[in-house]
Amino acid sequence: MVQERAVETRNQIVHGAAEVFDTEGFAGASIGMIVAAAGTTRGALHFHFRTKEELAKAVMEEQGLRELAAIQKLDDGKTPAIEQVVMLAHEMVRLTKNDPVVRAGVRLSLELTFVDSPKEPYLGCIMACEEMIRRAIMEGDIIDTVSPPILARFTISAFMGVQLVSTVLTERRDLEQRVDEMWDTILLGIMPGRRRRKADQVRAARWCSAAESPAG
Amino acid sequence: MVQERAVETRNQIVHGAAEVFDTEGFAGASIGMIVAAAGTTRGALHFHFRTKEELAKAVMEEQGLRELAAIQKLDDGKTPAIEQVVMLAHEMVRLTKNDPVVRAGVRLSLELTFVDSPKEPYLGCIMACEEMIRRAIMEGDIIDTVSPPILARFTISAFMGVQLVSTVLTERRDLEQRVDEMWDTILLGIMPGRRRRKADQVRAARWCSAAESPAG
Repeated sequence: MVQERAVETRNQIVHGAAEVFDTEGFAGASIGMIVAAAGTTRGALHFHFRTKEELAKAVMEEQGLRELAAIQKLDDGKTPAIEQVVMLAHEMVRLTKNDPVVRAGVRLSLELTFVDSPKEPYLGCIMACEEMIRRAIMEGDIIDTVSPPILARFTISAFMGVQLVSTVLTERRDLEQRVDEMWDTILLGIMPGRRRRKADQVRAARWCSAAESPAG
Repeated sequence: MVQERAVETRNQIVHGAAEVFDTEGFAGASIGMIVAAAGTTRGALHFHFRTKEELAKAVMEEQGLRELAAIQKLDDGKTPAIEQVVMLAHEMVRLTKNDPVVRAGVRLSLELTFVDSPKEPYLGCIMACEEMIRRAIMEGDIIDTVSPPILARFTISAFMGVQLVSTVLTERRDLEQRVDEMWDTILLGIMPGRRRRKADQVRAARWCSAAESPAG
């Protein structure tokens, strides 16, 4: 029971930290603000985390886990893999919009790029994307001269850049449109000629939960 | 004469600030460090800049000007525009490696994405790239169904993301290779079939100054 409560307190602190990092950024956040947002005490916080850096790391780790969970959900065993690749980017947009932990993690990753940005969230997304690309090649929707690790790394990198530029230029208001345009450009080069007429359908692929789906 | 000296002092301060921001980042830099790096006095610094934010802005403005100057140099009146687009990304890599002002500007842009990142350096690069894409379409090297503003914004965004991920995963060691891979993917979709056999040549395009060129 004591351990359960400790896990709960730690979660509460990570959520409070995410809220503060999301609005204040790494430099602007203070331990005092995080204690207040988490509704805990300074003592409880210091029992779990020694520094603001450790808190930031915990938020980015949680971000990575949530992104991976969202990505794993995409493989329902019937959606073509190429549509899953497209959905992946849109799921990440959706998470960034709706989940303050993911949003805080994205902000921290950028702000700490040159200091202490953990590689795992990037590598996790790249590996998941690579796996989808391999399946899409087997399904005949991506040309087999493409290298899955290279295309996966480029796709995730390009998505990060699209998110970055959309944030600076429009505070993310045009993000979904820019992700569609990203797919317009990338799909044009990687789909075999005979499949390319279904590129519009692929580009429009979105994940729906059973609850959200019109058929559900 | 007094005015000339003031301009020189301001330049000296911007350079000192760039050196400090480059190694310490925005949060880690202090006015004291910048005064020392610039070899000036606190009074002189405060005559030109009131806050660290203003110093960061001046460094990012100078970064934008240097990038634009490098981009303008690419149009020598004989290099095909599509090769100029490829060169653009490599010139930005070269500047980031060799010029501490540009490197500091790139770091500050990322760290201040959510606070006060000026739009101008991004917009300047996007517009220059758009102009090159328009010319490449006229020269028959890019298919005419491509929208120049959309492809330009995506190309600059993708490049920023490639730079970001390369920084996190390898401290930029694999950056040139990743930029080559970016062009492999993008060129595949935008070059007309009949021109695609020269894609390797286009991808390898680099700008040489007269002094560096073997023919010069």
